[in-house]
Amino acid sequence: MQETRRESVIRLRGAPQTFKYAVDGGPAMQPCILVIFGATGDLAKRKLLPALYKLHERGMPSVTRIIAVGRRPLDDAAIRRDLAEFITDKKEWEAFSQRITYHQLEFDDKAAYDRLRERLETYDKSLAARRVFYLATAPESFATISRNLSAASIASRRPQRGWHRVIFEKPFGHDLATAKALNKVISKIFSEQQIYRIDHYLGKELVQNILVLRFTNSIFEHLWHKEYIDNVQIIVGERVGVGSRGGYYDNAGALRDMVQNHLMQLIALTTMELPKRMEADSIRTAKVKVLKRIVREPPAKIRKHLILGQYTEGMIDGKPCPAYRDEQGIPKKSTTETFAALKLFINDERWRGVPFYLRTGKALHHQYAEIVVTFKQAPCRLFCGPDGTLAPNRLIIRIQPDEGVKVTFNIKEELADMSAIPVSMDFSHKAEFGINSQEAYERLLADVMRGDQTLFTRWDEVQEQWRIVDHLRKVKVPLERYAAGSHGPAAALRMIKKDGRDWSGNIPIK
Amino acid sequence: MQETRRESVIRLRGAPQTFKYAVDGGPAMQPCILVIFGATGDLAKRKLLPALYKLHERGMPSVTRIIAVGRRPLDDAAIRRDLAEFITDKKEWEAFSQRITYHQLEFDDKAAYDRLRERLETYDKSLAARRVFYLATAPESFATISRNLSAASIASRRPQRGWHRVIFEKPFGHDLATAKALNKVISKIFSEQQIYRIDHYLGKELVQNILVLRFTNSIFEHLWHKEYIDNVQIIVGERVGVGSRGGYYDNAGALRDMVQNHLMQLIALTTMELPKRMEADSIRTAKVKVLKRIVREPPAKIRKHLILGQYTEGMIDGKPCPAYRDEQGIPKKSTTETFAALKLFINDERWRGVPFYLRTGKALHHQYAEIVVTFKQAPCRLFCGPDGTLAPNRLIIRIQPDEGVKVTFNIKEELADMSAIPVSMDFSHKAEFGINSQEAYERLLADVMRGDQTLFTRWDEVQEQWRIVDHLRKVKVPLERYAAGSHGPAAALRMIKKDGRDWSGNIPIK
Repeated sequence: MQETRRESVIRLRGAPQTFKYAVDGGPAMQPCILVIFGATGDLAKRKLLPALYKLHERGMPSVTRIIAVGRRPLDDAAIRRDLAEFITDKKEWEAFSQRITYHQLEFDDKAAYDRLRERLETYDKSLAARRVFYLATAPESFATISRNLSAASIASRRPQRGWHRVIFEKPFGHDLATAKALNKVISKIFSEQQIYRIDHYLGKELVQNILVLRFTNSIFEHLWHKEYIDNVQIIVGERVGVGSRGGYYDNAGALRDMVQNHLMQLIALTTMELPKRMEADSIRTAKVKVLKRIVREPPAKIRKHLILGQYTEGMIDGKPCPAYRDEQGIPKKSTTETFAALKLFINDERWRGVPFYLRTGKALHHQYAEIVVTFKQAPCRLFCGPDGTLAPNRLIIRIQPDEGVKVTFNIKEELADMSAIPVSMDFSHKAEFGINSQEAYERLLADVMRGDQTLFTRWDEVQEQWRIVDHLRKVKVPLERYAAGSHGPAAALRMIKKDGRDWSGNIPIK
Repeated sequence: MQETRRESVIRLRGAPQTFKYAVDGGPAMQPCILVIFGATGDLAKRKLLPALYKLHERGMPSVTRIIAVGRRPLDDAAIRRDLAEFITDKKEWEAFSQRITYHQLEFDDKAAYDRLRERLETYDKSLAARRVFYLATAPESFATISRNLSAASIASRRPQRGWHRVIFEKPFGHDLATAKALNKVISKIFSEQQIYRIDHYLGKELVQNILVLRFTNSIFEHLWHKEYIDNVQIIVGERVGVGSRGGYYDNAGALRDMVQNHLMQLIALTTMELPKRMEADSIRTAKVKVLKRIVREPPAKIRKHLILGQYTEGMIDGKPCPAYRDEQGIPKKSTTETFAALKLFINDERWRGVPFYLRTGKALHHQYAEIVVTFKQAPCRLFCGPDGTLAPNRLIIRIQPDEGVKVTFNIKEELADMSAIPVSMDFSHKAEFGINSQEAYERLLADVMRGDQTLFTRWDEVQEQWRIVDHLRKVKVPLERYAAGSHGPAAALRMIKKDGRDWSGNIPIK
């Protein structure tokens, strides 16, 4: 498989520059000033600054500057010292750290914003005309910061020169109502073209791989239809429990934390029609279109098609894991779900009648994310499996931990799985390269500095995704229990078994 | 890939016993007397007797006896000594060799056949009622031996008890006329159900694998149609020159030696409709049906679609190889083709308009046999290869040297080949397990003793195959030259390039 590291030979039509290989290719990152709110927080220290350091090494324009904004009283030397801790290879640190200055600011202190504006005015005019605001803060501060940036004339919807862009960390809202309220505020200040909503799950490779796989292979394209597909499963399993994120997580739960964003994005990429062009808005338009066709079922049906669960004490990988209710920061009587399994339908010409089974959870037996397309079984004619049926063909798009694509088909000896297709893609560190990883932030930051919104969620996507999840959450379903380290609640298995199907399982890619 | 050695889980419908796993499964070999004509020849010594020895080890009925028939004056001890030379592991040799007796006989000496009958009468009656005659002689003797077996009442179309079966080594005829003449003789003596015409290319696994692959995978079955398939290539390349077989080969040539039998069988298995049942006659009927739809083109077209070649001096694998005309037993001015490439069409609903490119030759660069189904290219829409097109999807059924199935498809980084599917099938010695191998004979002999004709060619198949090849051979095409060790004559490449296509090449399975 030495072929797999070759340079990409696929050129992309429409906006080729948009989709070039990872961080290194594509249009240049434009010189700008990055203003990071929440710069003393964990995310900034562990992910954003290390990512920017890498971009520095890879050739971020030398004039680009970083203003680290935080509430604590620090000076430049102190913030640089703090940040240096999280850089392992410090070869370029001295040069890089000179880009960083610290600006103290309480998010609701208007005078402090005036000082920030004055500070921006000390920079070269053409540099200071290009501004990225990264809101790496708690979501509660998004509106306040946005308003104050605008009020102090730091950020503007139509800057006289250059551009202003703003990045919102997730989650974007807590439900449709709060998301709408937040969006109402920020859309008065920024145009949609200025807004970058983070959903790291939309790794460049992932988006590209699914689209390339779907639209460059006639064998799959012909078969991508209700006539040939029996069901689609989207499975994101996490082996870890809630860990130190308990405070946040207990207010979210699996439906809001995973289904609303990641699983909905995966379903959209899998099911959307061919976008008009290979650029951000065409792709996002195609995604929204199919999200709108996801069927909102009546409560009686949702009660049958939605399984929620919460983990109890158990063993993961040989180590004891406490019950969710005993985790740090979790109320003893919490009813937050740490597991969700559900069945959805899409009401369009391509998908009508094909069930989509989604499943995600924490503290499970396996850590993996994959899309499994199961084709309809061939009828048993000349040959038959031991139970009088034939194993169906499957296309498996593995997202984590090892990216790859696999097709299973029957050959003589073995019904299923014999025909594994190990395909390793272009990740050089694929095992470590996860969601929320430093590398993911590297790409996202580079994209913002290039003005590429493809991997960020447009408002109408967020809106549809919340609509779907809110609709499900309105219905009261029992909270099942499952032992940490297990495969999840038995009810999830019963739900799919009732349809004569089974969860695809963790099919090894290699 | 540890899965690949598991026990077969596919059960076969119709006549399950017919297609059970290899030699070990299926109905028992019935006790019988095997009469081998040409027992002192190379084939018998190197292949048949070692194969029978293996069957002995695997549980051939203990009463089964072997009469080795030859022209040379030998006794039992001498023939046993001769044969022992070719047995490597002799653990069971003593016991096995007791099954063998020698019978001297000139093929046209009628009195000798009477003695053979008397000899058969010395055996237990019920054993002697079941007779297999293996004609491992030059084809010229087939008719004579058959006639004399009949005249001496050794072989009969309707034996009073038991059964009589006769195996004809290939080639069966030299062209349609001679094949017909031979068949006329033998079909007066034997019914078609008694006749086993060898074509070792029809290994059990191969037949099963192609049929299982085609008819148990909905993804392939849906796509197995002119609407989705661009072209099919059937390629059998041999790295060896003509070697010591010059005398035979110069009277045959690539069309008769390879295309008429092996390539025609491969094309039939690839293109035939679903047989009614999984048993010999249904499969053979389906094959004949599609062979009859192979288009007989007018001479002007054949001149464009048929390339013949003969190898000149060259290097194979770093060793010099003489020109064909300098090989042992080959006339200096021989015009026999050692290479053939051709394009065919099949005029039925499934295949109309799809070109089939066949290619075979000796002293080539590579040693492999494969069927390559190329699907129509996806249109270039979002993504494009460097030349403005996309690599098409391919299904490759590798027959030799390593059996396997592979699908190529596009993923992000790489257009073709990235998505290799290494599949190893059920061969334990797959590299050595070739056509004409001892193992192949093991299976064929076992099948005859079981009465399974699936892997043997029925007369109407032979007839159609000769018709196709005779039709091609009527047209005079220039004899191209190609250096031994090369990829064959340039004209073969030009022929396919004219269609905007290329030979699939030797795509590695692993």
